[in-house]
Amino acid sequence: MTEMTNGQWRLRSRPVGMVKESDFELVREPIPEVGDGQVHVRNLYFAFEPAMRGWLDDVPSYIPPVGIGEVMRASTVGEVVSSRHPGFTEGQLVSGMLGWQEHVVTDGAPGPMGGLNPVPDGVSPELMLSALGATGLTAYYGMTDVGGVKEGDHVLVSGAAGATGSVAAQIARLHGAAKVVGIAGGPRKCAWLTEEAGLDAAIDYKSENLLDRLSEEFPDGISLFFDNVGGPVLDDALLRMAWFSRVVLCGGISAYNEEELPPGPRNYMQIVIRRLTVKGFILIDYLAQAQKAIGDISGWVAEGKLAHAEDVQVGFEKAPQTLLRLFEGKNLGKQLLKIAD
Amino acid sequence: MTEMTNGQWRLRSRPVGMVKESDFELVREPIPEVGDGQVHVRNLYFAFEPAMRGWLDDVPSYIPPVGIGEVMRASTVGEVVSSRHPGFTEGQLVSGMLGWQEHVVTDGAPGPMGGLNPVPDGVSPELMLSALGATGLTAYYGMTDVGGVKEGDHVLVSGAAGATGSVAAQIARLHGAAKVVGIAGGPRKCAWLTEEAGLDAAIDYKSENLLDRLSEEFPDGISLFFDNVGGPVLDDALLRMAWFSRVVLCGGISAYNEEELPPGPRNYMQIVIRRLTVKGFILIDYLAQAQKAIGDISGWVAEGKLAHAEDVQVGFEKAPQTLLRLFEGKNLGKQLLKIAD
Repeated sequence: MTEMTNGQWRLRSRPVGMVKESDFELVREPIPEVGDGQVHVRNLYFAFEPAMRGWLDDVPSYIPPVGIGEVMRASTVGEVVSSRHPGFTEGQLVSGMLGWQEHVVTDGAPGPMGGLNPVPDGVSPELMLSALGATGLTAYYGMTDVGGVKEGDHVLVSGAAGATGSVAAQIARLHGAAKVVGIAGGPRKCAWLTEEAGLDAAIDYKSENLLDRLSEEFPDGISLFFDNVGGPVLDDALLRMAWFSRVVLCGGISAYNEEELPPGPRNYMQIVIRRLTVKGFILIDYLAQAQKAIGDISGWVAEGKLAHAEDVQVGFEKAPQTLLRLFEGKNLGKQLLKIAD
Repeated sequence: MTEMTNGQWRLRSRPVGMVKESDFELVREPIPEVGDGQVHVRNLYFAFEPAMRGWLDDVPSYIPPVGIGEVMRASTVGEVVSSRHPGFTEGQLVSGMLGWQEHVVTDGAPGPMGGLNPVPDGVSPELMLSALGATGLTAYYGMTDVGGVKEGDHVLVSGAAGATGSVAAQIARLHGAAKVVGIAGGPRKCAWLTEEAGLDAAIDYKSENLLDRLSEEFPDGISLFFDNVGGPVLDDALLRMAWFSRVVLCGGISAYNEEELPPGPRNYMQIVIRRLTVKGFILIDYLAQAQKAIGDISGWVAEGKLAHAEDVQVGFEKAPQTLLRLFEGKNLGKQLLKIAD
């Protein structure tokens, strides 16, 4: 072993408002012995997603918050260094909720967010954590099971250049939606959506009037809105929904770092007037059937039908600041951090 | 004919904020001749409902607004004075969207809110406009088709002493809900809910802490919330919904008279965390199947299983001020105005 200690980023304090680097602390501890039935994994990549901000608040949610002093929860891909577990072999690539640490010794048992899984042959760590990771699977089940996307739909996706939105929008296209429009911030992201991801149009919420652009793109209304942003974006979209249409609430990144919850969508009575169905969902309810999504998404990627993008930062010491990139809107596609070769 | 003229309450100006009596004007005009295929109806009762406030605003909605100078739109029950229409006979009681006027000459053709219908034998005008009227039918389809109420549900209804809420809550009870709790304002309404309408509990939002009381009444969460109020009531209920539960948005009386739309529910991300389904609906989509609801509700009333209450004011000149009673929370059950014997 070249590393004698395990670097860990632990939660030092609960963030108030915008999460800060100082909310985490870097500590080192010895690498535990590998017991019978255990496997020692060296992490190579960390994955970042907006939902991680929610895991830092001590409020009732779909999973308990990360405790003060605990290693920050995150999806990772790593390599098996040694194994006394019948399911894993040395040198194998694996993925799981292994957290912001260089090494982990685990029995691989599934927690509420899944267990330790082999990375399939031919799948890169980047792809495993992006289109085949939690955000890709969220997009898949949100657009299909929850949203019921179907041929002829007029689909709007917010946060469309993010890891979830970019996959969701393309899944709508692959299901025969008549029109797919994405909302993103800035010309680089918007160009990627139309040129690489094959969307019909992209709306730059930073430089365009969203309500006007929605009227132009959806003269007969939006039949399915997949929302990752909430706040003013949701408010505007509610005024442009078609009668009897559907809203999938996937997330609300616009408010994740607010010190106090901002007001909700003032146009919510449009849900009544337009007879909308609004559904929320969480990926963990679909993990048992994840193989279906992984099979479909892998196929689309292999056939060149689904573009995926990753923003790869480098260096274990950058974990907290890489998380911040999500809330600064810097990432195009999946935000990753490479911590070892 | 004893009356030589027809009194009409017409919309004088669009209300700004709280609707005022001066937004309407009383005019008199001659009663038109009864043409071939027409029927002359003398109105006896006007019905009032919160949705009428929405009909006064010139914004896109499920029906066009009442125009300035037009007779105020309202459900009524009247008596046929003379008929040259094969479907109606002199002396018959009829119900329809005949508006705030003493007399109307009409061909009875259905508009978007239904046509002219005979009041069934044995049904009083009051019952026809309350449990069998638009608010009763709204309660029926909202609780059954939209909410999918079923045995064992833990049901919360806001505006529960109103015309829609009181019927909705009892329909939940009649479908075998394990618990039905209503929210209302003041001890008189709350006593009616538990003593007359057979609810398991009533919460007085004016004197009790709603969030605390919801925790007490729903230790395992609300499985179905039927909301007529919106605003802070919706916000609190969102924090007490069970996982995978349903919210039926029927109305939002808390904001109908606000000059500017107030903020929406700040807890709306609970829709995601709790995997809620939120549905809006409008009765007009169910009018074609209304006979089913009328049959069921009539049966329950006849068997003494469904209590109904009406607040009957008297005098044609009181139409605008009777509308205001809804927004002052004065009515227990259906707000009616008797304008003739």
